[in-house]
Amino acid sequence: MTTLPATIDRAACERLDAGDPLRAFRDRFLCDDDLVYLDGNSLGRIPRETPRRLATLLGDEWGRGLVRSWTSAGWMESPLRCGDAIAEIIGAGPGEVLVTDSTSVDLFKLAAAVMDARPRRRVLLTEHENFPTDRYIAGGVTELLGAGRMLRSVPRQEISAAIDDDTALLLLTHVDFRTGERFDMRALTDAAHAKGALVLWDLSHSTGAINVDLHAAGADLATGCGYKYLNGGPGAPAYLFVNTPLQSELRNPIRGWLGHESPFTYEPEYRGATGIRQWMSGSPPIIAIASLRVAVDIAREAGMQQLEDKAAQLTELFIRLSDERLAEHGFELATPRDASRRGAQVSLRHPSGYPVVRALIERSVVGDFRDPDICRFGLAPLYTRFVDVWDGVDRLDAVMRSGDFRREEFQSRVPIT
Amino acid sequence: MTTLPATIDRAACERLDAGDPLRAFRDRFLCDDDLVYLDGNSLGRIPRETPRRLATLLGDEWGRGLVRSWTSAGWMESPLRCGDAIAEIIGAGPGEVLVTDSTSVDLFKLAAAVMDARPRRRVLLTEHENFPTDRYIAGGVTELLGAGRMLRSVPRQEISAAIDDDTALLLLTHVDFRTGERFDMRALTDAAHAKGALVLWDLSHSTGAINVDLHAAGADLATGCGYKYLNGGPGAPAYLFVNTPLQSELRNPIRGWLGHESPFTYEPEYRGATGIRQWMSGSPPIIAIASLRVAVDIAREAGMQQLEDKAAQLTELFIRLSDERLAEHGFELATPRDASRRGAQVSLRHPSGYPVVRALIERSVVGDFRDPDICRFGLAPLYTRFVDVWDGVDRLDAVMRSGDFRREEFQSRVPIT
Repeated sequence: MTTLPATIDRAACERLDAGDPLRAFRDRFLCDDDLVYLDGNSLGRIPRETPRRLATLLGDEWGRGLVRSWTSAGWMESPLRCGDAIAEIIGAGPGEVLVTDSTSVDLFKLAAAVMDARPRRRVLLTEHENFPTDRYIAGGVTELLGAGRMLRSVPRQEISAAIDDDTALLLLTHVDFRTGERFDMRALTDAAHAKGALVLWDLSHSTGAINVDLHAAGADLATGCGYKYLNGGPGAPAYLFVNTPLQSELRNPIRGWLGHESPFTYEPEYRGATGIRQWMSGSPPIIAIASLRVAVDIAREAGMQQLEDKAAQLTELFIRLSDERLAEHGFELATPRDASRRGAQVSLRHPSGYPVVRALIERSVVGDFRDPDICRFGLAPLYTRFVDVWDGVDRLDAVMRSGDFRREEFQSRVPIT
Repeated sequence: MTTLPATIDRAACERLDAGDPLRAFRDRFLCDDDLVYLDGNSLGRIPRETPRRLATLLGDEWGRGLVRSWTSAGWMESPLRCGDAIAEIIGAGPGEVLVTDSTSVDLFKLAAAVMDARPRRRVLLTEHENFPTDRYIAGGVTELLGAGRMLRSVPRQEISAAIDDDTALLLLTHVDFRTGERFDMRALTDAAHAKGALVLWDLSHSTGAINVDLHAAGADLATGCGYKYLNGGPGAPAYLFVNTPLQSELRNPIRGWLGHESPFTYEPEYRGATGIRQWMSGSPPIIAIASLRVAVDIAREAGMQQLEDKAAQLTELFIRLSDERLAEHGFELATPRDASRRGAQVSLRHPSGYPVVRALIERSVVGDFRDPDICRFGLAPLYTRFVDVWDGVDRLDAVMRSGDFRREEFQSRVPIT
């Protein structure tokens, strides 16, 4: 991992791109626009291979193979095979990851399974700042199961101290969606295990951006989405991880027929499949899984340490340039300065954050905004260049100097996704 | 609806095709093979428009629009708009149907919501022969909620009598997956309502094949899959229906952020959206919804009464030919002879059903098999011709006369999906 030069200008950024070991990967994505796209943490770019793969799937496999493709084209196994491919980039083993449903549904399945399996522990613990869907799902699980179960939410710095003998599950998002701050997965897993609790990690803002190692952290359970840094496409399916020992203890509460040990004998009584396949519920979304698989294979090929290294450099560059050129406009860094404590994202607080992001989009720099005052910039390491970071900060500086963001048209709130 | 001629031969079937008001719809589907495809009840054929629509979505909307397409290309509204389109072909109103998740997950959401909302009624009632996933999901819901809830399963003819003051929910599949027998939706809904119970209809084998009218039946809740007669593609998303009055009573137990009243303000506490959007959980599967939408629009254009009429004629023809040519080989009709009591499917029982279906597939007639002895033939009305029925029965007769099905290679059980 190279360090940044002492003096940075656009030419220095071009030299960093020229020396980037991942530079060829940008060509694997459709990038035929002049956008500075710093929103891969919301929706990743499309791999050039994806339309070709889906054309084959549609024409040959669905069109001509028809129902026979469930076996002849490997459709039935595709959620397991794509899960195994994702396992390689999150430090899990074969047979521990399944592509299925959405992150919300997978959070529900895993959280409900833990709360159901360990009824003597009543508390599902999370943090105040967790992503809303994680909090909402957790609250829904505890209310639905009743019998004294409760959701407890504490500030970030009080999490470890809040884990006790009544804690069944700790639910955390590994990289915070607002600030990009990264939890120490190993330390929190150890703290939970010391009290007999399990941990469920939401990896939505981690996988494909940084080097996640679930086995090294002793992780129990995880899930994450496929459409951010994994580049699987809009609303791509999610994946879930259940470590091997827990696979024989926990039961999928949404007992679909494809999670049955023997789905094609249509038995009247449910017998959950051995292994990760138990967590399948309905028929797998074959087209969406094929799209996700193309993208996962690109990340595998790049290698997770290389992605983490480049994300660290891109975010470092953004922070340096922000210190030099944006602090004077009132921006405050919300992201940790220590690269090991952040994801591939830099967030800046500014009281006029919303119209600033709108004005920046008009200058062809796509970032996004999260209430109350967070301007988010996702620096997806597979296709973001160092010059993109330069241009992004340069145009943000220009937005502030011009006062463009004060224009009436940028003040009214429409969602920036 | 024309009746069949007194004498049927292949030329008569060609004349029926020539006079078929839906004949032009076959050209809307990719049918460039010589297959007699009688398995549209498992996976429908691909509309010719689908690859074009997805190419635009991939290149322009995802590729170039990127994250902005959530608003500019209408992605965020697409589960609601596709739901409204499906509403038109199942007799529901605007804002009552949402495309989301899989049938299994939707069954879970709706069943859990009812059992949670009406805790004084303990029983979730279903029938022995219901599709396994419906039974498995129902058992999972009652076990997860506990507190005395129980699944009760009775034979088909005892359902009405089994509904009592302790019944919270009756869960039935409208058209049986094995026999093709259709329930009287209105009569069973009335019987349930008379005892204060709600009914959840699984429409997987109905929608797109017959004329479903949820409002006319006074239906409460329904769900169904998108990949059978709806032709949405392998593992297409499902849809759910919640009638307008129940929308203010029932709560989605899988509380995803997109079902929040105000998802983009990221509030810490969950407030379910007004209307059907509350039933959304995670990010909608945009590519899969686009594929489903193309197909739903074809069914809307054809008109549901026309589809039901043609399905009635195709199944009538199959039954007539089966009486004339297949009964002598030991086939027994498992499907009702009254067209109003069946779906678009004909099922024949035969002790050698499994190898017979395998041998038939080798003669380019694709049907499928369900344990213990059911040969299933789905006659999807949008693209199945009368000559396909003739050829299917003709080759089935030939399989029996030749004894082909006794060959060793057809005896070993591999799934026929």
